[in-house]
Amino acid sequence: MRKLKVTEMGRLTLGEFRETEKQPIAVVLDHVRSLHNVGSVFRTSDAFCIEEVLLCGITAQPPHPEIHKTALGAEESVSWRYFKETDEAVDYLRKQGYTLLAVEQCEGSTLLQNFCKEEVKRYAVVLGNEVKGVQQHIVDKCDGCIEIPQWGTKHSLNVSVAAGIVLWHLADKH
Amino acid sequence: MRKLKVTEMGRLTLGEFRETEKQPIAVVLDHVRSLHNVGSVFRTSDAFCIEEVLLCGITAQPPHPEIHKTALGAEESVSWRYFKETDEAVDYLRKQGYTLLAVEQCEGSTLLQNFCKEEVKRYAVVLGNEVKGVQQHIVDKCDGCIEIPQWGTKHSLNVSVAAGIVLWHLADKH
Repeated sequence: MRKLKVTEMGRLTLGEFRETEKQPIAVVLDHVRSLHNVGSVFRTSDAFCIEEVLLCGITAQPPHPEIHKTALGAEESVSWRYFKETDEAVDYLRKQGYTLLAVEQCEGSTLLQNFCKEEVKRYAVVLGNEVKGVQQHIVDKCDGCIEIPQWGTKHSLNVSVAAGIVLWHLADKH
Repeated sequence: MRKLKVTEMGRLTLGEFRETEKQPIAVVLDHVRSLHNVGSVFRTSDAFCIEEVLLCGITAQPPHPEIHKTALGAEESVSWRYFKETDEAVDYLRKQGYTLLAVEQCEGSTLLQNFCKEEVKRYAVVLGNEVKGVQQHIVDKCDGCIEIPQWGTKHSLNVSVAAGIVLWHLADKH
């Protein structure tokens, strides 16, 4: 099968992206340390037309050359805002009517394959620090906890990979 | 909900991982440049109990400190082999009875959400270079082409994120 040329992919311009209808999904990064992970989440959020990325605490903000290197400009298309405390981001999302889902491994968490979204809801997905995960008090403020099952030796997936898998699961594949 | 402690996650030891039944899935990295991507694919392959990772061409091989940094040791649990030419990896997989799927954007490619695996088949997923993608002549040798739909401004996803999404889709969620 012939690979498509870039001009055949039908991607949006920056202007078109801003105008296009977004998926009713937000992403919260709770103290994500790696600029590579932040950039990669922006790139995935562009691909899946995510509403907004909320950068919290030590999570770096654009413009930043290291974020740009991985986001490849997606930090300019995707809406984002910064909160010093993740609690503030959670409160902001609550006011906007989002249902909050921590991506974590918790007692009684819902395995991703068993999570069925409700079409009328807007979801905010909270991803945590590379070592510590989502802060316990932030998990406690969420409406639920989604877990990507892992059957190997390691304790977690890379943050940007986990974000990609969960966003793909939640996205409306129109 | 209470976050699980590492000791409560029920992960496998290295010895148990080697003995455990794997998903009938292999991953081919066709000239992947970034050590971060290689490490991240190992980590995901450990999490989803992938059979084998085939590193081809310029793709770096373990042991390597930069791969280790992202794989966090998963390069020791997951089986891997190296081929100088990706063609050799494809021929090897054919002999093993794998069905080969390029992850690419091609004329007539199958959108991931429309791809239903056949339970009796073993699949090998081919991911390409960060800039050039899967080589056209390798795509031509595959049985099919899977495309992750992207609705934004950028032309592709990060390689390790694309790998994560496709492997999650193909994995048997037991």
